[in-house]
Amino acid sequence: MTTPDDTLAKLRAVGGRPAERVPIVRFRDGRARPSSDVVAGEEPLEIRLEGEAVAVTMRTPAAGQDAELAVGFLLGEAIVEPDHIARVSECRAEGGDGGVADVRLWPGVEPAPGWQRSFYATSSCGVCGKSSIDAVRIAAGTISGGPEVPAEVLTALPERLRRAQRVFDRTGGLHAAGIFDARGELLIAREDVGRHNAVDKALGRAGMDGLLPLSEHVLLVSGRASFEIVQKAMLAGVAFVAAVSAPSTLAVRLAKESGMTLVGFVRDGGFNAYAGSGRIAVAVS
Amino acid sequence: MTTPDDTLAKLRAVGGRPAERVPIVRFRDGRARPSSDVVAGEEPLEIRLEGEAVAVTMRTPAAGQDAELAVGFLLGEAIVEPDHIARVSECRAEGGDGGVADVRLWPGVEPAPGWQRSFYATSSCGVCGKSSIDAVRIAAGTISGGPEVPAEVLTALPERLRRAQRVFDRTGGLHAAGIFDARGELLIAREDVGRHNAVDKALGRAGMDGLLPLSEHVLLVSGRASFEIVQKAMLAGVAFVAAVSAPSTLAVRLAKESGMTLVGFVRDGGFNAYAGSGRIAVAVS
Repeated sequence: MTTPDDTLAKLRAVGGRPAERVPIVRFRDGRARPSSDVVAGEEPLEIRLEGEAVAVTMRTPAAGQDAELAVGFLLGEAIVEPDHIARVSECRAEGGDGGVADVRLWPGVEPAPGWQRSFYATSSCGVCGKSSIDAVRIAAGTISGGPEVPAEVLTALPERLRRAQRVFDRTGGLHAAGIFDARGELLIAREDVGRHNAVDKALGRAGMDGLLPLSEHVLLVSGRASFEIVQKAMLAGVAFVAAVSAPSTLAVRLAKESGMTLVGFVRDGGFNAYAGSGRIAVAVS
Repeated sequence: MTTPDDTLAKLRAVGGRPAERVPIVRFRDGRARPSSDVVAGEEPLEIRLEGEAVAVTMRTPAAGQDAELAVGFLLGEAIVEPDHIARVSECRAEGGDGGVADVRLWPGVEPAPGWQRSFYATSSCGVCGKSSIDAVRIAAGTISGGPEVPAEVLTALPERLRRAQRVFDRTGGLHAAGIFDARGELLIAREDVGRHNAVDKALGRAGMDGLLPLSEHVLLVSGRASFEIVQKAMLAGVAFVAAVSAPSTLAVRLAKESGMTLVGFVRDGGFNAYAGSGRIAVAVS
């Protein structure tokens, strides 16, 4: 199995980057100052087998690793066997962000029967490059208004969410999502082994309680803020998303383009604002 | 929108549990002793809209939360609007593990056009209850042989993987997967915003390098060990999976059923063995 060198060279020339430096506003010790931060790359990759789309995953781009990801995915889903793979080609998606990796088999070998139908969708779905990102923004509109949240309220949220995590206490680690009002009161907390599931549960509960759109609320996630988290928040009308860990490049971009506030690294009494810092109030001393 | 009380009651009676206590072998300070640990629940949930399957996700079961998850998922993918939902029913999957949540709309309202085709697959796919778990085990066979790994080698692996994470250093947090030989030498390290992607990249690289099956190697993941991680490892012939954080119930079950070694919480000089502790060597003092 080989990856053509010219394809790799092309990818390096036009491909996405594993990380990007972005401007931020850094909040520490009751003060805000402009700064910058390096954010992990996130982009869609379409995995193809014999030219046919099998899956789309949001991945960190790195030269040569799209082929690895496609091969690993198809092996791990028992669709192909290692000896059956003849070659893998990588290219950029036409006219947009993201990549395509196409796995080709040797003549005479076949993928596992029923591989086209063996997949169900998950929350990674429907995400494939620029056109989908635009579609999401149009569907949800641009966010205006929204809460003003004091910086000291924001820094107190992770501990409040953590205290509401009953299963975490017993098992030593689960993802969590919390919906707070602008004064920092926790309204809904949900846990799950899956990060997106915790967000879906919390936003679903809000929907069932008639709370949507959550235009005056804060959504806090216990881990990283990916594109999908921001996308889900947008569609629930959330204007303010906070994450205990880092955001991705695509999460920052979508938040900026849609007028959402996105803060990350809410810990140790401070945080970074990657988008929409105008919704954060700093006490004048 | 309502969730019928009788359905909820039924779910509580027969449903999965958010957490389960499992027997383990605890390795600390060069000694191994039998103990137990509480592990977060993981089970498949099939999300249906008007009776038709839309997605399968691996989630932590909790009474009433399947409905929330289904509603949140459909809202977050812009398939339905909050006002359109008439009711949500929850039930157990027939004859197996996992649940089904079916979202029904009011007469006269329609889901977003093209919702059946708007999804691609991800690595959560193909997982739907007992029959698929059996299928995976049969496809991969039962693992025998495998490396014997000294406990002190195992405890040194996370720091070695961490040192190989170039993008993590710049961005403050990415998932990682590493493939080590039985003496603890790091052969392949890959990073990604997605946990499964990091594993796919590492196993895909191993496949491209002709290293499969990885029967004498250790796969280390920087975070939690879910069912899917163990499934991917199995299909690459990995006999020994280690995680820096906690495993899920389904990961433990699959590892046990397939003869794999699964250790978790590899940190602070110790770890827990959830399956296959016979492959871990403790120095006789």
